[in-house]
Amino acid sequence: MLSLINVDEIENYFDKLFPILRSVTGNGNRETLNIINEIVDLNITEVPSGTQCFDWTVPPEWNLKDAWIKNSKGEKIVDIKNSNLHILGYSTPFTGKLTLKELKEHLYSLPDMPDAIPFLISCYKRRWGFSLTHNQLQSLPEDTYEVLIDSDINSNGSLTYGEAFIKGKSEKEILISTYICHPSLANDNLSGILSAAFLYKELKKRSDLRYSYRFLFIPETIGAIAYLSKHGNELKENLIAGFVLTTCGDRGNFTYKRSRKGNTLPDRAVECVLSSTEKEYTLEDFFPTGSDERQYCSPGFNFPVGSLMRTRYYNFPEYHTSKDNKDFISFEHIKGTIEKYLDVITLIEANDILVRTNPYCEPQLGKYDLYTSLGGQRDTSIINGLIIYILNLADGSNDLIDIVKKSKYDFRLVIEAIRKLVDKNLLKVKD
Amino acid sequence: MLSLINVDEIENYFDKLFPILRSVTGNGNRETLNIINEIVDLNITEVPSGTQCFDWTVPPEWNLKDAWIKNSKGEKIVDIKNSNLHILGYSTPFTGKLTLKELKEHLYSLPDMPDAIPFLISCYKRRWGFSLTHNQLQSLPEDTYEVLIDSDINSNGSLTYGEAFIKGKSEKEILISTYICHPSLANDNLSGILSAAFLYKELKKRSDLRYSYRFLFIPETIGAIAYLSKHGNELKENLIAGFVLTTCGDRGNFTYKRSRKGNTLPDRAVECVLSSTEKEYTLEDFFPTGSDERQYCSPGFNFPVGSLMRTRYYNFPEYHTSKDNKDFISFEHIKGTIEKYLDVITLIEANDILVRTNPYCEPQLGKYDLYTSLGGQRDTSIINGLIIYILNLADGSNDLIDIVKKSKYDFRLVIEAIRKLVDKNLLKVKD
Amino acid sequence: MLSLINVDEIENYFDKLFPILRSVTGNGNRETLNIINEIVDLNITEVPSGTQCFDWTVPPEWNLKDAWIKNSKGEKIVDIKNSNLHILGYSTPFTGKLTLKELKEHLYSLPDMPDAIPFLISCYKRRWGFSLTHNQLQSLPEDTYEVLIDSDINSNGSLTYGEAFIKGKSEKEILISTYICHPSLANDNLSGILSAAFLYKELKKRSDLRYSYRFLFIPETIGAIAYLSKHGNELKENLIAGFVLTTCGDRGNFTYKRSRKGNTLPDRAVECVLSSTEKEYTLEDFFPTGSDERQYCSPGFNFPVGSLMRTRYYNFPEYHTSKDNKDFISFEHIKGTIEKYLDVITLIEANDILVRTNPYCEPQLGKYDLYTSLGGQRDTSIINGLIIYILNLADGSNDLIDIVKKSKYDFRLVIEAIRKLVDKNLLKVKD
Repeated sequence: MLSLINVDEIENYFDKLFPILRSVTGNGNRETLNIINEIVDLNITEVPSGTQCFDWTVPPEWNLKDAWIKNSKGEKIVDIKNSNLHILGYSTPFTGKLTLKELKEHLYSLPDMPDAIPFLISCYKRRWGFSLTHNQLQSLPEDTYEVLIDSDINSNGSLTYGEAFIKGKSEKEILISTYICHPSLANDNLSGILSAAFLYKELKKRSDLRYSYRFLFIPETIGAIAYLSKHGNELKENLIAGFVLTTCGDRGNFTYKRSRKGNTLPDRAVECVLSSTEKEYTLEDFFPTGSDERQYCSPGFNFPVGSLMRTRYYNFPEYHTSKDNKDFISFEHIKGTIEKYLDVITLIEANDILVRTNPYCEPQLGKYDLYTSLGGQRDTSIINGLIIYILNLADGSNDLIDIVKKSKYDFRLVIEAIRKLVDKNLLKVKD
Repeated sequence: MLSLINVDEIENYFDKLFPILRSVTGNGNRETLNIINEIVDLNITEVPSGTQCFDWTVPPEWNLKDAWIKNSKGEKIVDIKNSNLHILGYSTPFTGKLTLKELKEHLYSLPDMPDAIPFLISCYKRRWGFSLTHNQLQSLPEDTYEVLIDSDINSNGSLTYGEAFIKGKSEKEILISTYICHPSLANDNLSGILSAAFLYKELKKRSDLRYSYRFLFIPETIGAIAYLSKHGNELKENLIAGFVLTTCGDRGNFTYKRSRKGNTLPDRAVECVLSSTEKEYTLEDFFPTGSDERQYCSPGFNFPVGSLMRTRYYNFPEYHTSKDNKDFISFEHIKGTIEKYLDVITLIEANDILVRTNPYCEPQLGKYDLYTSLGGQRDTSIINGLIIYILNLADGSNDLIDIVKKSKYDFRLVIEAIRKLVDKNLLKVKD
Repeated sequence: MLSLINVDEIENYFDKLFPILRSVTGNGNRETLNIINEIVDLNITEVPSGTQCFDWTVPPEWNLKDAWIKNSKGEKIVDIKNSNLHILGYSTPFTGKLTLKELKEHLYSLPDMPDAIPFLISCYKRRWGFSLTHNQLQSLPEDTYEVLIDSDINSNGSLTYGEAFIKGKSEKEILISTYICHPSLANDNLSGILSAAFLYKELKKRSDLRYSYRFLFIPETIGAIAYLSKHGNELKENLIAGFVLTTCGDRGNFTYKRSRKGNTLPDRAVECVLSSTEKEYTLEDFFPTGSDERQYCSPGFNFPVGSLMRTRYYNFPEYHTSKDNKDFISFEHIKGTIEKYLDVITLIEANDILVRTNPYCEPQLGKYDLYTSLGGQRDTSIINGLIIYILNLADGSNDLIDIVKKSKYDFRLVIEAIRKLVDKNLLKVKD
């Protein structure tokens, strides 16, 4: 497939979005969605703080104007302007002078990765704090430190999310969900936001989509829960497949985490595409920690939602630290992830159950001029074998994915061959 | 679990019971059951010789007062007082003088294990004989030998077995069956008798048992058949799990032989406990040779009865010889076996199907103060992960054992976490 | 089993049949069937050219009187009399003189196997041609060549096949199908023709056959399709197992290609026999290329038809060349293949579902005198174990094949033991 995805355009958007201070709520999220709106036709929803969503309550809105620590010489030794990760998310406002000992109760670092700033947040318990490298923490002298946290926690605020919808021929829909609540982390999850946005852009070009596509750009956990508490029952009617987009940009092989049910349409489609196109990849059964598949796959919903990633969260040491930055990811790999999702969608869109028009014995293939039109530089004996496979498997019990899996041919070749056989009236789609 | 099982007490009972001449029938069995009665509230049943039990007939009762072989100097070269194994079980009475050649037709030894006396019995075909070491057999000189077998085979006798019952809240019951017909063999099966007796003693202390527990101390094969011919239909109604206790005392790893159906409650529970608590163990599918699971799992009953052992019968060379003696076993290992059965019972007693009170999305765990009460020195992140697993799996299709298996957490931790979640009204037992 | 199959007789028939020029149609096929008729009571059917069979049309009949290439000296450099493989099957008539360049457009060879003549046919597209060794092709000098193909393509001819039927007690039938359209190829498929014929001869001797047996000697593909278009619906009613006989004579281990459904009666029976009797063999799932199982297992029929072979077509380099000749095969191996089919048939004929007359506990085996009659030089403990297995598995859910598979005993021993147990009224056949 000749892809029209422009790597430079992805990088430009990365550079715009990376410095923004995103969190569960706040203006950084609104700014992010406004920029994404240049690519995706978003509907922005504001869910008021205090809204009850199943067992949860939407938290107050948090915004931060400034935050720093000065030493007694008045030098800023920690400054939010240098890295958004310095601030413990949802830090309460604070100004004051502290001894080193007092200050240390509010400082967080990673002894095992002494040159990285960890990403931390405390959304449901009020506190304040700073993250910094362990090297810096250990080098802090006894001193009197001045601290400023100019933040605002507003119970009359709201949580912001964006939604887009591409209408296909069918009401049946496919969900693409990604989370927008992480500040200045490249793989987790600006890569997911960018992949979802540019996947939207590619799908929007297609005039012949069979299924509808719903895109969600939401804060993780509470955002998904807020969405499901309002729209979960609607999704129950039409959702046939869904994906949580995260860690789409590192240089690793693909990882697919199955839906809770396992063997659902997205599971089968992704495994089929990966086996056709990748040499090495990882398939994982569902487990209930992770991202928003936790909510989509909670027992009451149990939706067919999986997650096709590159290296999975938890599995790369840069995870949730300042080392998950632009250097860690590759825009070519983000493009590759988007193309892989497009492959999966191509397969799902074409995934019919096929039946022979006459199921008895083989047709006399020589009559149908199938080879030349399919062949080209390809080895016609491969096509011949594939056609015989398809005709044998098209008994009304196998769909396209089954045929790919059983015949072991590349899914793109199978789709092409099926189209030819339908054209020749040797196959038809089962009602 | 702090166990109250007293190893010395087990050893004391071993020393009392080991020298007794047990067989399919006879006073040795009655004496054995009388001693076990000090630990277990036994009901003793006598089944008259000649009673028809399915295809079988209860054999005449056999008792032995004395048995020896003297050489022509009047020296006792083989004497039942040295080892019960010297007598071929169910030997007919005999007195007489024989040449070496004549005598040898009644002597049994093990050429492959020349210093061991084999255990032999001929219950359904009348004959007499002695077992002795192959070394002794080969050193016997030409001589005239005098033989005495002062035995009694009484068609008006009976077969004796003991039964005990602990009533739980439910009529549903768990069977603990062990066999008492082997003389002076330590692992096979005095270890099983002692394990059953002390398991009874521990269970009897519990006031909150959910299920009822039936203990059988019976002669192997004909004893089980006699019991089933009378009580098999009653067991059909209430038996949810059963175990045959044998070879519980050697120093080997655990072996579990599954019930015939496989994947029954005892199978699932034992596998769950072993995977939580043991590094190395063996799981075997049912096979129809072995001990009384042959009868419990015959097609007409097909009960959920397995056997949790240490080294399985047939798999240790000391099997059915004088080498299966006190040195071969360890009382610490018998205690370990009893504790393993207690673990299995703990799991079965707690094995509910669990459902979320609200199955949509995750609850907001931070609200429930779950960690501190569970945490202690344990890593709270483990507990956190476990709770998320339980809440995701509690969809009404998984029982406790499924949750342990799928989450891969220690079963004791899962039980503890479930209790907490039920307390917090986040989970409930499915009706 | 003491086999009465006569290897010399097989070889004699081989020598008669090998030189005949067989094809999809023609007098060579009639001659072949006439010779087979000496062994098998064949009904010969002629299907007129032009007959419509599902998507296919029976081709015109092709016969060849002579074919050669002469050089300018008048020397025959290629002559059908030296090898039937020299002629491209279905070559149109031709006489003429050609330059080397013109001739080469009609010559076929195998560069990778330069001393072998390939077997080629062009039944549905009209052309003419010769096969020869690549060595000879490359050594042809510039010259004027004279070509004769004295062939006849007759639209008023017919396709010829042979059918035989052995009536058993039941209408249920087993299909033995082999193809007769290959000229002068030993393994593919004169070995199949001979195996089918001598299998017929052996079965015909049996007076107690439970099932009926249908033998087909047909041209591959169009022959099977012609047969199925007329008789396919009848087969649907009674066919319980079928086999395509091909490549039965090389010295390789057995290969079994499963039916499309997998786990059908022939699949289970062959796997059971091979595991009982062979150390090394290959089991393959169905794939839709190959021989006439392509038609029998087309979706509309989906018959339980597999193929027990030695080295499978495609897997030996001699395939479809002059090297697939008498040297390549062994008559002892053909005999072995026939005997293996007889084993499979023995197993299918005996494959009852068995139930205990009394399913409760074990019978008291000592009463039944089972061992001596079964024992002989065999270890009675093996027989004892086997009997216990059978009695435990005979619960009405396992057939003979299940019992063999689960008990892991040799199928012949299991059949023998079951007969004894039925005699003793311990087992009966499930209605």
